[in-house]
Amino acid sequence: MSRADLDFLLYDWLEVDALTKRERYAEHDRSTFDAVLDLAEELSTDLFAPAAAAGDVAEPYVGDDGRVVLPEEVTAAVHAYAESGLVASTFPAELGGAQLPFTVQQAAGAFFQAASVGAYAYPSLALGNASLVCAHGTAEQIETYAKPILEGRWYGTMCLSEPHAGSSLTDLTTRAVRQDDGTYRLTGTKMWISAGDHELGENIVHLVLARTPDAPAGVKGISLFIVPKVLVGPDGELTERNDVALAGLNHKMGFRATTNTLLNFGEGSWTPGGRAGAVGYLVGEEGRGLAQMFHMMDSARIGVGAGAVALGYTGYLHALAYAQERPQGRPVGAKDPSAPPVPIIEHADVRRMLLAQKAYVEGGLGLILWCARLVDEQATATSDAERDRARRLLDMLTPIAKSWPSQWCLTANDLAIQVHGGAGYTRDYPVERLYRDNRLNPIHEGTHGIQGLDLLGRKAVADRGAGLALLGETIGATIARAQDAGGAAAEHGDALGTALARVGEVTTAAWAEGDPEVALANATAYLEAVGHVVVAWIWLEQELAATGRADALADGKRVAAQYFFRYELPKVWAQLDLVAARDRTTIDLDPGVL
Amino acid sequence: MSRADLDFLLYDWLEVDALTKRERYAEHDRSTFDAVLDLAEELSTDLFAPAAAAGDVAEPYVGDDGRVVLPEEVTAAVHAYAESGLVASTFPAELGGAQLPFTVQQAAGAFFQAASVGAYAYPSLALGNASLVCAHGTAEQIETYAKPILEGRWYGTMCLSEPHAGSSLTDLTTRAVRQDDGTYRLTGTKMWISAGDHELGENIVHLVLARTPDAPAGVKGISLFIVPKVLVGPDGELTERNDVALAGLNHKMGFRATTNTLLNFGEGSWTPGGRAGAVGYLVGEEGRGLAQMFHMMDSARIGVGAGAVALGYTGYLHALAYAQERPQGRPVGAKDPSAPPVPIIEHADVRRMLLAQKAYVEGGLGLILWCARLVDEQATATSDAERDRARRLLDMLTPIAKSWPSQWCLTANDLAIQVHGGAGYTRDYPVERLYRDNRLNPIHEGTHGIQGLDLLGRKAVADRGAGLALLGETIGATIARAQDAGGAAAEHGDALGTALARVGEVTTAAWAEGDPEVALANATAYLEAVGHVVVAWIWLEQELAATGRADALADGKRVAAQYFFRYELPKVWAQLDLVAARDRTTIDLDPGVL
Repeated sequence: MSRADLDFLLYDWLEVDALTKRERYAEHDRSTFDAVLDLAEELSTDLFAPAAAAGDVAEPYVGDDGRVVLPEEVTAAVHAYAESGLVASTFPAELGGAQLPFTVQQAAGAFFQAASVGAYAYPSLALGNASLVCAHGTAEQIETYAKPILEGRWYGTMCLSEPHAGSSLTDLTTRAVRQDDGTYRLTGTKMWISAGDHELGENIVHLVLARTPDAPAGVKGISLFIVPKVLVGPDGELTERNDVALAGLNHKMGFRATTNTLLNFGEGSWTPGGRAGAVGYLVGEEGRGLAQMFHMMDSARIGVGAGAVALGYTGYLHALAYAQERPQGRPVGAKDPSAPPVPIIEHADVRRMLLAQKAYVEGGLGLILWCARLVDEQATATSDAERDRARRLLDMLTPIAKSWPSQWCLTANDLAIQVHGGAGYTRDYPVERLYRDNRLNPIHEGTHGIQGLDLLGRKAVADRGAGLALLGETIGATIARAQDAGGAAAEHGDALGTALARVGEVTTAAWAEGDPEVALANATAYLEAVGHVVVAWIWLEQELAATGRADALADGKRVAAQYFFRYELPKVWAQLDLVAARDRTTIDLDPGVL
Repeated sequence: MSRADLDFLLYDWLEVDALTKRERYAEHDRSTFDAVLDLAEELSTDLFAPAAAAGDVAEPYVGDDGRVVLPEEVTAAVHAYAESGLVASTFPAELGGAQLPFTVQQAAGAFFQAASVGAYAYPSLALGNASLVCAHGTAEQIETYAKPILEGRWYGTMCLSEPHAGSSLTDLTTRAVRQDDGTYRLTGTKMWISAGDHELGENIVHLVLARTPDAPAGVKGISLFIVPKVLVGPDGELTERNDVALAGLNHKMGFRATTNTLLNFGEGSWTPGGRAGAVGYLVGEEGRGLAQMFHMMDSARIGVGAGAVALGYTGYLHALAYAQERPQGRPVGAKDPSAPPVPIIEHADVRRMLLAQKAYVEGGLGLILWCARLVDEQATATSDAERDRARRLLDMLTPIAKSWPSQWCLTANDLAIQVHGGAGYTRDYPVERLYRDNRLNPIHEGTHGIQGLDLLGRKAVADRGAGLALLGETIGATIARAQDAGGAAAEHGDALGTALARVGEVTTAAWAEGDPEVALANATAYLEAVGHVVVAWIWLEQELAATGRADALADGKRVAAQYFFRYELPKVWAQLDLVAARDRTTIDLDPGVL
């Protein structure tokens, strides 16, 4: 992760120091933001980076005593994070937090994700869990379950998927039966639960989606429950083990430092007091579980995009260093075979691969931080209109912030391997692991295809297209500034304007028959094309932010923007044409011919 | 691997049974071809498939005695192959071969590569080695070194790269000093040597590129040597160990069943008779080493493409089976949440991913078999003009046959994982391994970038563009047939004709300044675009071959062709425009701004 780039994005572009004028952030100034970034850089370098390789090679396993064993390096990194106080950094002071802007926290998180995405997942998932309890739980639930997480003592999960229900949560069957005392008893099996078991803290708070017996079918029958691994007494003391049992660890291609588990609830492995089922506590009201979880899932999705960016970014820096140092071959057309070989960064195709990586990872980072800025805007806007605007833009951008980095920063990792040649294919170089780690991101927290359905099926058309219109206005404002700036930025602005207009036409064309099956048949192509248009806009923004500066960083922003507009943006036309044509190839397919 | 598809491609499309009219193949008929395919299918299923997972999990290692230990399953598979007599199948009868057409052998090989690309590499590399000795060695060298390989008793390697010289072979420094007896002594270190050490056979014949002391700089100073692991006496008996030492195994992301080694020649680990250096025997003349090796490298490159196709194909079949069986979600727009979930093959985006895989792997297989057919044409053409035509087309298509499957069949593996969702990211499903295995292919035997330079820098412009013109004529003939056929094929033919014409314009435009640096700056984009145009042609060919048939296989060919023309071919325009514009972004880049 490049601190200089983060500084550019945070201060020169997003002007996050202006946030300190808002009441919530009034205790901060640039120096406190910098101190957080310094701490993140230091901790991630000293403790998280060693955890990355260790957690990959020495994958977590279940010891003879049934407890999960993590590599020491992973434990050390997570504990150092817990002790740093960073866990609660964005939370209000009354919950022990530092009221740090989310944008700064996201930037700090990038250091950790870049150093060890697998180790960082533990505090990150715990934080998401605590946020949800703070948003929807009772004061007592916040005190009992969220606070120990914010203090870095406990951890947390989100238990959504079941073996037969992943993308389709409506089919989940975990049951929650209300008891006379107001608590519930849960029985069922949850799959793909990240950080579902480990010994990092004193307790693990599971947030579990389950169905109550008389609930209606479909998503409206789903409720959300707090199910602690160890039950908690009235004074917050740990009492007996709840009936939550680790049924197995998944063995993954990458992202191995994070345990990924199959969990049994109420299978009788532990039956404290003879209760049938795991003890759970309803969060909010019955039937609101999925809506509440989605509140969290949006930030989880942006978090996935952020992780993808960090992995791509790290790979890019490794590839850049390798290309600067590795001598091989001579310039095209060179005649003298006895001339010394040149560093491979001299070769056009290696430069293309480096520029592509730079464009993907710095573009992706910009997108993520822009989204984080919207979160802060939403939290502290001074008018309802502003708050509403931030929310709408964030809704619109969330599927892109999740999917675009998951696709293109994985491509960046692929290119980082390619720059290394054979060396990149060996486990001696980190780019090999980064590629495996990043391959998870197009899958979890809503697959790539699900994001496409969300964008074209919901976000782009909700409220008669208000979100898309607002995004268009926002991008249009950047284009207007680019036209004023003239030169390359104006050219880029024109190209972006043309693509943006086409997105509008294509959205209308996709829905011209009003039939969701037809409109959404090519939703993934739409997602990918709109993603590229959005990141072209982010690049134009970065190019404008670099205007008037003559240093290497600003020159790098200009050339990466040029790369994106020349090599990348033109890719969208073929995809947008396909969507506009309402191509029926997949609909009309007889699957028997495959 | 689908036998029905192979039968379609071999017999209905390529009409390989017509080859039996040629003298070289006159002993064969369709039944002998079928027997070879039956044997390949059986052996690959029974022995190679179990070797795939075993060779991945139990990676080869160096035992305490310094010998390489392979998993039993890998050894069993390779030995069964050796005993099957398939090794020499394409060789002339006088060398113990069966004079099988190369096309049939390539098709048989697809079964083995699909089942365990890592185990199949041992006989495959040995075969390449023996072919080279047979093409350029003396009768005695053939008898001594090639025959034991063809009999399945010995193995072989090709030793090109060195730690500091991979893509740039001109920089290799391994020395070969001529002795009074006409033999040579080699000293140096070779890197990335696949199958460089193991105990599968009695001996390993290394074919080593090295420089003689007074040789000129550059590629003209490179000679080719036979360097056996164990020296061979006058009657073919094994005598003493040569001075070739295993210096280490590389630990790879995938393709793990194949040992990949660092080898020291003449480092004194074994110094039989006090000789300084490893004993080597010159193949052909001094200074011809690289040219001779390239003869072999072309078929090695097509072999890489074939392996990439096979891995992609296997992944596709796994994804198809999974999509047919895995229930999840409901059709878009379905309102009743209590309706049972449908198999995921009902979802448009899953169908898109399956069609894409089918289009990539069956298109790639068609391309590889077309190239193999050209090899047979070259070997048995009845006129010089025909032979020349086959050679020119093969030259032209080789960089595409290597790179296109390496890119798109890896993409197929990526999509196979995506179809599996979280399951595909675990090591419990083979698609995870296939993706790792296939990631090697864009790297070895000439990287992706090197193939682009070869295509636009040499093949497309050699002899004033004769190769490109011939390819254009060949594709043009298919387009003419498509226009006669009418319907969808005619539409596809028109689209292909437009793209083909653009390739011609773009090739001229790229070279308009006559400056290789400018022309080749975007050679990779050219490679990828021309590859897509070529595979569109292969799909049109397959579509035409399916004309008049109403079965599922033929319908599948039609829909995959439709997919390719609607979803894939339009991608080439952005790339071709970039090449035509002679974009200078990478040339003008100041690397200090990265």
